[in-house]
Amino acid sequence: MRIDGTPYRSVWVDSDGWSVRLFDQAKLPWSVEILRLTDVGQVAHAIRSMQVRGAPLIGAVAAYGVCLALRHDASTEAMERDAATLAATRPTAINLRWAVDRMLARLRTTPAAGRVDAAYAEAADIADEDAARSEAIGSYGRALIEAAASRKTKPGQTVNVLTHCNAGWLATVDWGTALAPVYKAHDAGIALHVWVDETRPRNQGASLTAWELGKHGVPHTVIADNAGGHLMQHGQVDLAIVGADRVTRLGDVCNKIGTYLKALAARDNDVPFWAALPSSTIDWTVSDGVAEIPIEERAAAEVTDITGQLPDGTITTIRVAAAGSPAANPAFDVTPARLVTGLITERGCCEASAAGLRSLFPERG
Amino acid sequence: MRIDGTPYRSVWVDSDGWSVRLFDQAKLPWSVEILRLTDVGQVAHAIRSMQVRGAPLIGAVAAYGVCLALRHDASTEAMERDAATLAATRPTAINLRWAVDRMLARLRTTPAAGRVDAAYAEAADIADEDAARSEAIGSYGRALIEAAASRKTKPGQTVNVLTHCNAGWLATVDWGTALAPVYKAHDAGIALHVWVDETRPRNQGASLTAWELGKHGVPHTVIADNAGGHLMQHGQVDLAIVGADRVTRLGDVCNKIGTYLKALAARDNDVPFWAALPSSTIDWTVSDGVAEIPIEERAAAEVTDITGQLPDGTITTIRVAAAGSPAANPAFDVTPARLVTGLITERGCCEASAAGLRSLFPERG
Repeated sequence: MRIDGTPYRSVWVDSDGWSVRLFDQAKLPWSVEILRLTDVGQVAHAIRSMQVRGAPLIGAVAAYGVCLALRHDASTEAMERDAATLAATRPTAINLRWAVDRMLARLRTTPAAGRVDAAYAEAADIADEDAARSEAIGSYGRALIEAAASRKTKPGQTVNVLTHCNAGWLATVDWGTALAPVYKAHDAGIALHVWVDETRPRNQGASLTAWELGKHGVPHTVIADNAGGHLMQHGQVDLAIVGADRVTRLGDVCNKIGTYLKALAARDNDVPFWAALPSSTIDWTVSDGVAEIPIEERAAAEVTDITGQLPDGTITTIRVAAAGSPAANPAFDVTPARLVTGLITERGCCEASAAGLRSLFPERG
Repeated sequence: MRIDGTPYRSVWVDSDGWSVRLFDQAKLPWSVEILRLTDVGQVAHAIRSMQVRGAPLIGAVAAYGVCLALRHDASTEAMERDAATLAATRPTAINLRWAVDRMLARLRTTPAAGRVDAAYAEAADIADEDAARSEAIGSYGRALIEAAASRKTKPGQTVNVLTHCNAGWLATVDWGTALAPVYKAHDAGIALHVWVDETRPRNQGASLTAWELGKHGVPHTVIADNAGGHLMQHGQVDLAIVGADRVTRLGDVCNKIGTYLKALAARDNDVPFWAALPSSTIDWTVSDGVAEIPIEERAAAEVTDITGQLPDGTITTIRVAAAGSPAANPAFDVTPARLVTGLITERGCCEASAAGLRSLFPERG
């Protein structure tokens, strides 16, 4: 998507033909810094420290991490070890394991001498396919926003979309998942406005989603995570669209902590609640998301301390909680399928259920 | 309650016999600063700027504001004007208007020469009665925590209470509302632990609730507002107790923004959800809280900027949202009575309904 008019992807191979370029998302929205990664350790660090985040983007970046690892040592032993390291950097993101497994499937049957070239080709395919999937999600999701526009009492009335966390182009290779329909609808001239949950504790909404919507020119308003229910009670949300870190075969949606609370409010106020995701996010081995999906517990300091910008432009971190008080930081929650109006995938929209998913992915039986 | 062992109230008359002392709650939890207020303008400023906050405390402080006004000018005209100024400082807090009206009812029939003494006596009564009401709320609410303890599979297992915002002793004259049962149960030796919603955008949970629980020695953990639903899904919350800024005659609960989302999660997971409040919080003239209660929209900067402490101890404010992104800041929401297990008042517990409230307050017909 565009930054002040210039199109970008969120990860790409440098003009040197091998090093990996991506935005340091930990620096956004305060400064736009493009990292150059040259070895697998840097890639693992970028994922672990959330310089890159967003399930689809993490998958593509991990794929390029395999490329950098092979440039250093293309032996099967090293490849398997480095792939395992990459796969372990974030426990919840199913795309990460999916991308690493896909790379290994291609490379295990490739002689060591040809692995580097094969890896870059496969990683490029993963990135291109991700961008295409996101664009398809955008097209299918745009129809939902158009439908919401048609339900308005007056033609041209603004459609209000609520989103949580950042499932925009920064979280994928391009377009985004939850925001892809927003960009498609906005670019098609539909009047819309996005309520952006700030998404504590890491504030990906207030920082990343607000930043990318602003840079692309989409009207939006940042709100505290506490505010969405009130807005829905008062008819100020026409539909909610969120991303997903993992979706079970029964349609449960694991996404950034707090998603479940918004889904409850949407149900209580008859607001459609959609999750947008590439099919690589679907974990066909899991049924009951609440019972089966392990939830990453992140550092307490993410809750007790907040990073932001001083008036002089300096980026700093302040403590906001009482001294000595402990904090807990579960990073994701699971929204049961019964609360999800439907899923938006690259193959179309479906009910959040085994039958719904089967209708789009019959090959999964 | 106690600060490191020393008992305090949240507002008191100075040893000079007339000036008003209270904690600058905007400085908590970073430093304990006790203000000395000497005129009605300072009182109005303290309420408006949220140096004092919490519906019951605001009422008591406003009552002392009337005292300071009368010391300056005890005429009826000035009294009515200053009372109107005080009543307008915060639009949502029903206690504020209640306390000011009670002062006026006493003072309108008092000759100007006797008004100052009468005002201090009435304000002291308001403060003492508030402390007594809070303590009674604590005793009735303690029974709910004891009941939760008795439902545990093993005797002595920790009861987990979730609370939102600060409805502790800092929000009342003493004991608190939502936290009064916690203090009563803790002081009685019941093993309990409090999940403290940080309560964005002003972080009253992470700062004030965590601070006062810590100072009194109550085990607690700060969480992002997004986390409560997840904890309830996993059986980690035995009951939720929140305060209230206004309760309708049908039992709808207007409280800090985000309360509604927690009530939805409590209902979805069969977690008892109680609101604790003095009866002065009940607005007998309002039925449908969502439709009828005006919600204060506060400054966008409370969402886009956060105040906290640098490692060197300096208190500073940083911007956390993307530059140029607007923000909205509704400060309260309304939880419909159907989601509220019950109300804890100074007269006992009741169903959140017209019949429930009538059973405790038969004089209201």
